[in-house]
This record gives sequence, C-alpha cells and structure tokens, in this order.
Amino acid sequence: MQILLTVSYDGTNYAGWQRQENAITVQEKLEDALSSLLNRQVQIRGASRTDAGVHAQGQRACFMAPDIRVPLDKLPMVLVSLLPPDISISNAKIVQEEFNPRFDALHKTYAYSFYNAPSPNPLLTRYSTFIPQSLNIESMQTAAQFFVGRHDFAAFCATGSSAKTTVREIYACNVERHPNGLLTLTVTGNAFLYNMVRIIAGTVLYTGIGKIACDEIPKIIESKDRKLAGKTMPPQGLVLLNVGYSVDKFQCVR
Amino acid sequence: MQILLTVSYDGTNYAGWQRQENAITVQEKLEDALSSLLNRQVQIRGASRTDAGVHAQGQRACFMAPDIRVPLDKLPMVLVSLLPPDISISNAKIVQEEFNPRFDALHKTYAYSFYNAPSPNPLLTRYSTFIPQSLNIESMQTAAQFFVGRHDFAAFCATGSSAKTTVREIYACNVERHPNGLLTLTVTGNAFLYNMVRIIAGTVLYTGIGKIACDEIPKIIESKDRKLAGKTMPPQGLVLLNVGYSVDKFQCVR
Repeated sequence: MQILLTVSYDGTNYAGWQRQENAITVQEKLEDALSSLLNRQVQIRGASRTDAGVHAQGQRACFMAPDIRVPLDKLPMVLVSLLPPDISISNAKIVQEEFNPRFDALHKTYAYSFYNAPSPNPLLTRYSTFIPQSLNIESMQTAAQFFVGRHDFAAFCATGSSAKTTVREIYACNVERHPNGLLTLTVTGNAFLYNMVRIIAGTVLYTGIGKIACDEIPKIIESKDRKLAGKTMPPQGLVLLNVGYSVDKFQCVR
Repeated sequence: MQILLTVSYDGTNYAGWQRQENAITVQEKLEDALSSLLNRQVQIRGASRTDAGVHAQGQRACFMAPDIRVPLDKLPMVLVSLLPPDISISNAKIVQEEFNPRFDALHKTYAYSFYNAPSPNPLLTRYSTFIPQSLNIESMQTAAQFFVGRHDFAAFCATGSSAKTTVREIYACNVERHPNGLLTLTVTGNAFLYNMVRIIAGTVLYTGIGKIACDEIPKIIESKDRKLAGKTMPPQGLVLLNVGYSVDKFQCVR
C-alpha cells in the first residue's frame, strides 16, 4: 500500500526539500516523523525538489505503508503533531503502488510574489521579494504571456542542470496585483528546469522596471542564452502551490 | 521639531513595544536606530503599547528632532537600513511639538486572524491562530455587532489593568472570511483595555464553536465579569492596523 501526502512548509529554515548529509531538509523531517510513527526507517519520494528557502502549499510525497495502523483521515493531524510547526500535512490518500509523485505529475503550479511599495512590510518579507521601484504592471502582464507554450527554455535554466532536454511547456503564466501591495506571478507548466521560475520572475520583473522590453521575450527564449534573461530572483518569494495528476493515475485503489 | 513615524513590525521575536530592562522590544530597536542616526540618545513615544508577539502595520511613534539632517522623504528608508528586517518605517511627517501619539489618538484599528481549516498552514501560522473545528461564521458575525457602541468593557479586560475607567467606545466590529481560509475580526474603537481585543476575539470564537450563544454577548458585557467572556486569544493572530488622529492635530507645521 502506497500513501500520497499533501505537504505544506515554510522553507525559511530548510536547505530545501531533498535530504542532504550536512543540512536540515523538509524530506528528512518528514521521514523522521513517519519513521517514529511506523517504528521503522521510512523513505519518501517527493514530487518536486524545491530549493533552499522555497515554500510549498501543495507539495506531494509518497511512502509505502503496508503496516500503517492510523486511519487515513487521522493521519494528517497525527503527522502534524510529530512535525515542527513550519511543516504541515493537509491530506493523505491511498494511491496505486506503481504511482510515482514526480514522474506521474502532469503539471505543477508555482507562485512568485513581489512586494511593491516604498518601504518593506515586515509581515510580508518572509514570503515575498521587496521591490521599491515603481513597476509597469501592464508590461509585466504582457511579458508573462510570451512564456505560454512549448519552448526550449535553455535561457531560463541555471547552469549545472542535468536535464536531458530543456524543452518544457507552460500552460499559464499571469501577473496579478493584490490590494495589499503584493504582485504575484503564477506559472503552471508540465515541468520546470533548475531555477526556471525564479529566472522567469526576474525577467518579468525586468520588463516592469524597463530593463527589458516585453516584446524581447520571444527573442530571449529563442536565443537559449541565459545571459540575456533577467536575474534569478531570491527563493523566499517562491511557493510551490500545486502538483496535478491525471485522474486515472491519482485514483485511489480503494 | 517633532517627527511622527508610521511603524510596522513582525512582533514574533519581541517582548512587545515598550522598552524593558531584560528583554528586546521594538521601542528599543527603534530608539537605537534613531540614536545612531542622530548621534545622541533619542527617546520615542508610541501610540500603542502592543504586547509580546503582537504585530503592527500602522503603529505610530514620535520623537523630537531639532537636529535632524536627513530629508523627511528619505528618512523611512534610512531608518529601514538601520533597523532589523522585522521592523520597518513607511512614513515620516512633521507634527506640532505638543502632539502626543497616544493621547491624541482618536481611534485605533486591530485585526485578529484565525486560520480555519482541517490542518495548519505553515505559511500563515506566524500571523494567525489555527482553529480546526468547524465554525458558525454567521454567529460570529452577529456576535461581533453586539460590541459596537459605548460600553463598560470590564468583562473584556485582563486583571492587573490600571485603567481609571473601563468604559470604551467601539465604532466598528466585523468578521470577514477570506478565500484562503483566514477569518479576520477587525475592531475599531476610541481606545482599548489591556488584552481587550484578544478577549473579544476569544468570545467571538466561542460563539462560532457554540460555547456561547451570540445573544448572550450583551449580558456578558453588562455583567462586567471577566469569567463570563471567552478566553484571551494568543498574541500571534493580532495586528495593530492603524491609529487615527484628528486632521487638526495631525496637520504638519510645515
């Protein structure tokens, strides 16, 4: 029996999702909680290896649990009680044993938030990047649209990536202004390259401050040249919002 | 010359606003920043002495600055650069020398946030109180209305308060549900007793979980008995949103 968890975390104090030798990660904390619950070593597989400092509202993680005794509807709160307050579980489902949360993902949605005001807001700094300059929001909204479609995103990939292909498909890319001064870029795609959302966010921001014209975006994509895109935005503005699966794959075995 | 600052802070790591001997407070951090800027000991007067762990978006603080050289429009960002990231200044104005940010305040607005969902959300726990039970929002909205008006709020005051009178006037008191699961109680009044908003929040919450019927609120106010009201909610859900002044008092001398 395999169980799929929906995981949320404040990534501020973690060296990212994936387990590491000399740093505390979300995967390690979750494996520790599951290991104490099941009284054996538990390994989990995550849908997305979020970077250090990146947050999540809808990360997914799977583990094999033929021996679990806690009823499924109680499992989230039992795990919450075993986890630190900056990690939470909102859902637990049984999935097929061959289900893989990473390779079966059909789409992922990320949000990148800017706080645009003359001075920083301490209640938002943990989850956004402060931008004091005035921004041309319409340019940013136009720029975002150019990312939609199937493209080679080599220009939007950090060096050191081991991806076999840099072709990805973006299904939706929008910039929205909220009344509290937050500006959110939301991107849904089939998969993402290393730092891709943070580089797209930096490029869209550059169109807002006039460093890049929005109609240059198609040329930057075409160039496959990382140097022509905007800067990689810092991690604290990024949240993994959701990972989507096909209903068939996702369907519970009971 | 007296300057009035608008101050925001994440109160998580502070023992409240007011300077104390053996604890770090927001007032101390702000006085330290101003003292380094003006190269002398600076004392400030705040509008509201928020408790340990309580946040602010629109706290006000005054200081005498006959010797200030930084232009007023640059002052917020200069202070931000001298302050820790969990304290920020969004505005600086010149006010009359007799202006007192606490005693000249005409009204204050606080918001108390509950996060109502089956499991906690780590991106909201810093600024809300997690309530897993299902809530009757309409009861809470009705209950909130009973607080509006001029009442003796002795039943909504923590013991140990030194207030001369426990009569206060509430101008507005509303409960609003947000799409992300947050439920916010917003209260505007002429002044507040010690822990008053947090006890009102606890009482309104009790009407939402059925521990108190909403039509009992007038009787609880009338009783002046703290034991009949709801519990004092924890500080992290509370934000001081705004302090309002009469235009005359507030008007700049130049």
